[in-house]
Amino acid sequence: MPNITVALDAMGGDFGPRVTVPAAVQALSHFPELKVILIGDRVQIAEQLSLLGYQSNSRLVVQHSDRVISNTEKPSLALRNSDGTSMSQSIDAVAKHEADACVSCGNTGALMALSRFKLKLLPGIDRPALISALPTVSGANTWMLDLGANVSSDADSLFQFAIMGSALAEQYLERSPRVAILNIGAEEIKGNDLVKRCAEMLSQTNSINYIGYIEGNQLLSDVADVVVCDGFVGNVCLKACEGTAQIFINKLRSSMMASSIKGWITRKLFSGLFNDLKTLNPDQYNGASLLGLRGIVIKSHGSADVEALVNAIGEALHEVKRQVPSRISDRLEAVLLERHY
Amino acid sequence: MPNITVALDAMGGDFGPRVTVPAAVQALSHFPELKVILIGDRVQIAEQLSLLGYQSNSRLVVQHSDRVISNTEKPSLALRNSDGTSMSQSIDAVAKHEADACVSCGNTGALMALSRFKLKLLPGIDRPALISALPTVSGANTWMLDLGANVSSDADSLFQFAIMGSALAEQYLERSPRVAILNIGAEEIKGNDLVKRCAEMLSQTNSINYIGYIEGNQLLSDVADVVVCDGFVGNVCLKACEGTAQIFINKLRSSMMASSIKGWITRKLFSGLFNDLKTLNPDQYNGASLLGLRGIVIKSHGSADVEALVNAIGEALHEVKRQVPSRISDRLEAVLLERHY
Repeated sequence: MPNITVALDAMGGDFGPRVTVPAAVQALSHFPELKVILIGDRVQIAEQLSLLGYQSNSRLVVQHSDRVISNTEKPSLALRNSDGTSMSQSIDAVAKHEADACVSCGNTGALMALSRFKLKLLPGIDRPALISALPTVSGANTWMLDLGANVSSDADSLFQFAIMGSALAEQYLERSPRVAILNIGAEEIKGNDLVKRCAEMLSQTNSINYIGYIEGNQLLSDVADVVVCDGFVGNVCLKACEGTAQIFINKLRSSMMASSIKGWITRKLFSGLFNDLKTLNPDQYNGASLLGLRGIVIKSHGSADVEALVNAIGEALHEVKRQVPSRISDRLEAVLLERHY
Repeated sequence: MPNITVALDAMGGDFGPRVTVPAAVQALSHFPELKVILIGDRVQIAEQLSLLGYQSNSRLVVQHSDRVISNTEKPSLALRNSDGTSMSQSIDAVAKHEADACVSCGNTGALMALSRFKLKLLPGIDRPALISALPTVSGANTWMLDLGANVSSDADSLFQFAIMGSALAEQYLERSPRVAILNIGAEEIKGNDLVKRCAEMLSQTNSINYIGYIEGNQLLSDVADVVVCDGFVGNVCLKACEGTAQIFINKLRSSMMASSIKGWITRKLFSGLFNDLKTLNPDQYNGASLLGLRGIVIKSHGSADVEALVNAIGEALHEVKRQVPSRISDRLEAVLLERHY
């Protein structure tokens, strides 16, 4: 019985409807509980649906929008000039409770500015944060935030990120997540004022399982469930992991693709290892979540393919089922109570 | 004819004289131009020398020091309380022109504070910066700074880092190095005030070959010769690359070490690829340089083994031969002239 509606920005991302429409159709067959509102140019959407031999129906509604926010548009300009864009209408669908969540592959800055303006922040949250799961050597995930929703943060925001990350990770782990701050050393004396002040706040908060500082080389080592940092650091660090992983994967791939006997043996023997290593590239995951809003907004990679976008839609469904914004509010209330009394 | 003297802090690092003494002896046989002053506990040093069947001579002088700065000592405390330590005496040797450079595996914060206090900054430099070469896919190096000499920086410092990094890289490349700023996006609108103001200054400076922003996933892609960032970002980012590379290398190593036939075939076929991949771990390099001082100070990893420490001593020799502090001063003067007229 389809009972969760996701508004999908059909025009965002590098490929627009060529990826978003097949992803919507595939997601509908994967997730029986899903309904999709595809928002974008009706002609382009119809074209893609007809290529797939699929027609709109009660589970797939098309909503026309005339305009698209480009990837290079400044968030402030996008905010003033967003009427009638596919991204704006996707967020509106959540604001008007026509959809339970929205998913977009479009301009991250614009998505954040519009979401914040249209959905509003949860009480007690000063800034939203972008969070995503990273793979680790153990197979478990580590959630990292902020990945770039903000270019600078203060200690209060960092503290709120820790609470939001912990509330989200708890929905997956069903135990109290280990929360760490990313720093330039593990010792207490290390770091800048921002991390030191946040560390002090977290170590005084019993309802958060704060385990201390971790360093950049521990991100994929499963030493923490939630890693907190400012958006600039999180963004460059995550991309540094992705870039390094990609270089190793590419080197292995080219040795597997060699047409020699060696290439043939490599393919036979090591496709398992290769697939195992691929799962260690943080880039394989898709669907970063904007936390701190009164609604669920999922940001997909601009370069996402059909499979990756289906994953992002899956992430939206998961967060709807777990009522993540309410869980964050509950956790925040508990922390505030603890700190005030 | 030995004509370059390096003062080596024999007590620093995780292994002290057990690594520093064999490294000094090995470096002397590698580099005929080298003389070493080994500074540390004379009994422990003599013990290691005798294990190696080596005696002090005109190329290897031992200078006794009573004390060691621990790895957990706060830089401010180390500064007040450094008399008679091996690190302090090593820097003194440079300050008194008894040595041309010093190398230490000890406490980074203390090394920076002491070097800055004893050697003084070059005119026009507000803060020293830690720089190291990173490997890239092409086989060429990319130099990155600051790697953690400072926990926060302003745009003027970042601009000075760019000048220093460019002056150093030029000594290796013998062409004008491509200088980039590490940012959360490649577009001009992206980033925080710090990187935007530094970008503005660099794009107005003709004597620096500024190529714009790069993202974290491009660090090992040879798109720039010098990458500039603040010390917090540089430290976590470099370690993120190292940690990711290490995970991939470990996975491959365990598949090569398997005692099965598959392990045997892997060893036979892929030791070349494996060694190739190992060279892509930034951690293989050793010998980060503290730039901006009136003297040459090389920081080795605390966990460096003999070979790695020999590399760090080689880096010191290279910088002495190229007179890196003078090259930085020249470059800085040229930039200041250009900006003021």
